[in-house]
Amino acid sequence: MKTNPGRFFEDFRLGETIRHATPRTVTTGDASLYTALYGSRFAVQSSDAFARAFGYPQAPLDDLLVFHVVFGKTVPDISLNALANLGYAEGRFLRPVYPGETLSSVSEVIGLKESSNRQTGVVYVRSTGYDAAGEAVLTYCRWVLVRKRDPQATVAEGAVPHLAKSVAPADLAAALPALDAHAYDAALAGSPHRLGDYAAGERIDHVDGMTVEEAEHQIATRLYQNTAKVHFDAHAVKETRFGRRLIYGGHVISLARALSFNGLGNAFGIAGINAGRHVAPLFAGDTVYAWSEVLAVADLPGRSDVGALRLRTVATKNQPCGAFPDRAGEGYDPAVILDLDYWALMPR
Amino acid sequence: MKTNPGRFFEDFRLGETIRHATPRTVTTGDASLYTALYGSRFAVQSSDAFARAFGYPQAPLDDLLVFHVVFGKTVPDISLNALANLGYAEGRFLRPVYPGETLSSVSEVIGLKESSNRQTGVVYVRSTGYDAAGEAVLTYCRWVLVRKRDPQATVAEGAVPHLAKSVAPADLAAALPALDAHAYDAALAGSPHRLGDYAAGERIDHVDGMTVEEAEHQIATRLYQNTAKVHFDAHAVKETRFGRRLIYGGHVISLARALSFNGLGNAFGIAGINAGRHVAPLFAGDTVYAWSEVLAVADLPGRSDVGALRLRTVATKNQPCGAFPDRAGEGYDPAVILDLDYWALMPR
Amino acid sequence: MKTNPGRFFEDFRLGETIRHATPRTVTTGDASLYTALYGSRFAVQSSDAFARAFGYPQAPLDDLLVFHVVFGKTVPDISLNALANLGYAEGRFLRPVYPGETLSSVSEVIGLKESSNRQTGVVYVRSTGYDAAGEAVLTYCRWVLVRKRDPQATVAEGAVPHLAKSVAPADLAAALPALDAHAYDAALAGSPHRLGDYAAGERIDHVDGMTVEEAEHQIATRLYQNTAKVHFDAHAVKETRFGRRLIYGGHVISLARALSFNGLGNAFGIAGINAGRHVAPLFAGDTVYAWSEVLAVADLPGRSDVGALRLRTVATKNQPCGAFPDRAGEGYDPAVILDLDYWALMPR
Repeated sequence: MKTNPGRFFEDFRLGETIRHATPRTVTTGDASLYTALYGSRFAVQSSDAFARAFGYPQAPLDDLLVFHVVFGKTVPDISLNALANLGYAEGRFLRPVYPGETLSSVSEVIGLKESSNRQTGVVYVRSTGYDAAGEAVLTYCRWVLVRKRDPQATVAEGAVPHLAKSVAPADLAAALPALDAHAYDAALAGSPHRLGDYAAGERIDHVDGMTVEEAEHQIATRLYQNTAKVHFDAHAVKETRFGRRLIYGGHVISLARALSFNGLGNAFGIAGINAGRHVAPLFAGDTVYAWSEVLAVADLPGRSDVGALRLRTVATKNQPCGAFPDRAGEGYDPAVILDLDYWALMPR
Repeated sequence: MKTNPGRFFEDFRLGETIRHATPRTVTTGDASLYTALYGSRFAVQSSDAFARAFGYPQAPLDDLLVFHVVFGKTVPDISLNALANLGYAEGRFLRPVYPGETLSSVSEVIGLKESSNRQTGVVYVRSTGYDAAGEAVLTYCRWVLVRKRDPQATVAEGAVPHLAKSVAPADLAAALPALDAHAYDAALAGSPHRLGDYAAGERIDHVDGMTVEEAEHQIATRLYQNTAKVHFDAHAVKETRFGRRLIYGGHVISLARALSFNGLGNAFGIAGINAGRHVAPLFAGDTVYAWSEVLAVADLPGRSDVGALRLRTVATKNQPCGAFPDRAGEGYDPAVILDLDYWALMPR
Repeated sequence: MKTNPGRFFEDFRLGETIRHATPRTVTTGDASLYTALYGSRFAVQSSDAFARAFGYPQAPLDDLLVFHVVFGKTVPDISLNALANLGYAEGRFLRPVYPGETLSSVSEVIGLKESSNRQTGVVYVRSTGYDAAGEAVLTYCRWVLVRKRDPQATVAEGAVPHLAKSVAPADLAAALPALDAHAYDAALAGSPHRLGDYAAGERIDHVDGMTVEEAEHQIATRLYQNTAKVHFDAHAVKETRFGRRLIYGGHVISLARALSFNGLGNAFGIAGINAGRHVAPLFAGDTVYAWSEVLAVADLPGRSDVGALRLRTVATKNQPCGAFPDRAGEGYDPAVILDLDYWALMPR
């Protein structure tokens, strides 16, 4: 058999390392498409001149573009037979990535837990993106619910990894170049608010909404070489529960991040992902809104140029966020589609 | 408040200068997207080899891509609370812009005129795009109808600027490199007609039509980092007069310009915008057609290589332009959506 | 008349050479869009690092991107008044094309055959893509059914060219750099199967499906500067037989090629097109599937690094290919839309 059937739950072995296919050189072409798909306006990624004045050698690629490219490579091996993407943890963006660099991905299986009904199991992986020299640029854990090929198949006893509740500030942005907060032109960046202007507990409605079209999420998801067929095959998904194409969860993350510019305009980079949950699916025609809560304002050891905001960004569909729709009872307000806890960098 | 509410009419001060956010490095990735969105075929912008043979150092970016990027930056400060984009004047493309350059925008408030109902007012700005060295590359005036936050707010007496009816040929293309009209390969460019082949009064039906999809205009408008929510938020606009997303007027200009290749294939650049009006809105699913009238054929002082055509290009929706739909009575033929008066460059 | 009416059948002369308009510099921006439109995952085109390790100076552009750009230029002169694109033959990809190169196209009229009803005729052309130095990079024959302007017009006696049934292996990949099959990292490329693992007669269902949206095929076809109005003008095509926009046949070829990665992951380049037929039209909303048959496994003279697979890839709409839908009686299974016979390169 020459085609890839994807792995089923019983095919994974605890501790195994899976080297994923299709290395990818990311370019200014990808950066343009990323802007065109999300309308991102963070000045560091938008302008070489701005990035250089601040201390970068040139404008880095959007951190989430790097994330999606690294993630996309893992799909054919990890989640082709997945029913749901359950969560993220311990995500660290280890250094900026620049146009012209080549990315590839490797995953380690760090946990396996069969479901009680024996039809499925949860696979925990730590996936790492590498540059062409083999240096890691991004690492994160995710866990997915994967079908078993054969429900009767016997699997080893479950092992659920211990995952940190959040990434420690000391582990963020280790290889970020030295930046010059005085040279950071906040007016040109579009917001006067720097790190010290934010306080834990503060909530920000990002106001704007963005409607998603089928062509847009397909173009994005193919750009990331993500092959999950639920995003692309309208014919096959007619028989599924939703009856239509599901939008890649990472597309929602990027939309929420781009919307968050309105209120967090100087949160110029993402340094870590503490936790993330795709609460509900998004479909073409829906409009995405977002709000954020500041969970913490943190110093970064040894750095006087930038600090980090721990943010929780909640995205909704078809409901503006002036009322901050949130968890409700055991679940969530029905409009919520994403609950993401992450560290963003901000100049002092 | 950390989010940008946009300025209301009473927030503008005559003579003030507004430096806009988000500098943007424009690249070959943007050029590819521009081609993909409009299908533009002007050889100078399409081919480095052609551009070099003609006298450019490399293929410049499409003038309208530069315009849209410069324009997009002004939106969060000037027109976030605008009800209508009323007109353009005194547009001058000061020099070609090349991939890799960084653009930013500054606007000066040159006029303010409260509406008689006191609910709104017209804001006149002169917006200028700058390169990373602070050299101006494009300047134009536009005026927009902006809501007042408080209809009772008192505003200074109105001041309506004097704007030229057209840009003088002597003010066009000042920094255009010396070009070699003999080396301009008209056959390769796709049209045998040079400057001298056009005459004032001539009308050209551009024949072809282009249907616009929601994904396309959203991708374009985000590429320009234009944040006007009427283009993106299908949920919010359900309550508006049109009940659906409006397409960015600049998208129509670019479509009309690309269509105009069929008949004006050697009109290789835009040098000035004399006047422009978005006569009616365009919606996804509509098909755009265009025709042009030659208003004048002009020499450019000191230049034997190229001259300028003053063109009036009229775009319609869902109606081919064989009958040249135009002004009608006090208004326009109902199919007309754009009436643009501009200067295009053409080799002699 | 300044607009291009396109040539009608009686306007073509046997043996004439037509130099087509709009040279085009192809860039990494085009490569990103190509990935975003098709999700192609062949490692050689995706990664500079991978391509270099294998022996290329950098990642070449996808062969079909080159094909579409060269093809697009021929449309205004050859097929603007065509009713159908009937076939391809003798296609040879003469050398890899890299980002930054400029392409232009020339066609020679090699055959003309009036239809018996005298309303139309078949035009045979050999089209060749050239780089900026005038070196040929791609050549192929195609024949199209073109309307006559005047059915009464007298035309010369028909001449149908002799076209080879297939390109000989000795004529493939003449200018392909020397590659290092040992350095080709098949695991990283995503498939363990090399040339010797395929056998004539083998059939592969490529499993995955891809739904096409109007915005996607329009963006693709404009990227190629292909001006055929049936792809773009929803208003005009309402009056046609299908009543809707037709998708450019080359879009189907690229979709089928991208889907074929699942089963042919190391078929890293296309070296020749033996024959091709667009069996039925594709419309937006349809989902494309594909399967392939190995017609032959061939050595390339003097090369120990790579060989060639002669493949027949069949694409369908709205029907998965597990049952290998194929020719049926005098025609085809109604789901079939493409039948393409070509040579792909694969490392030994």
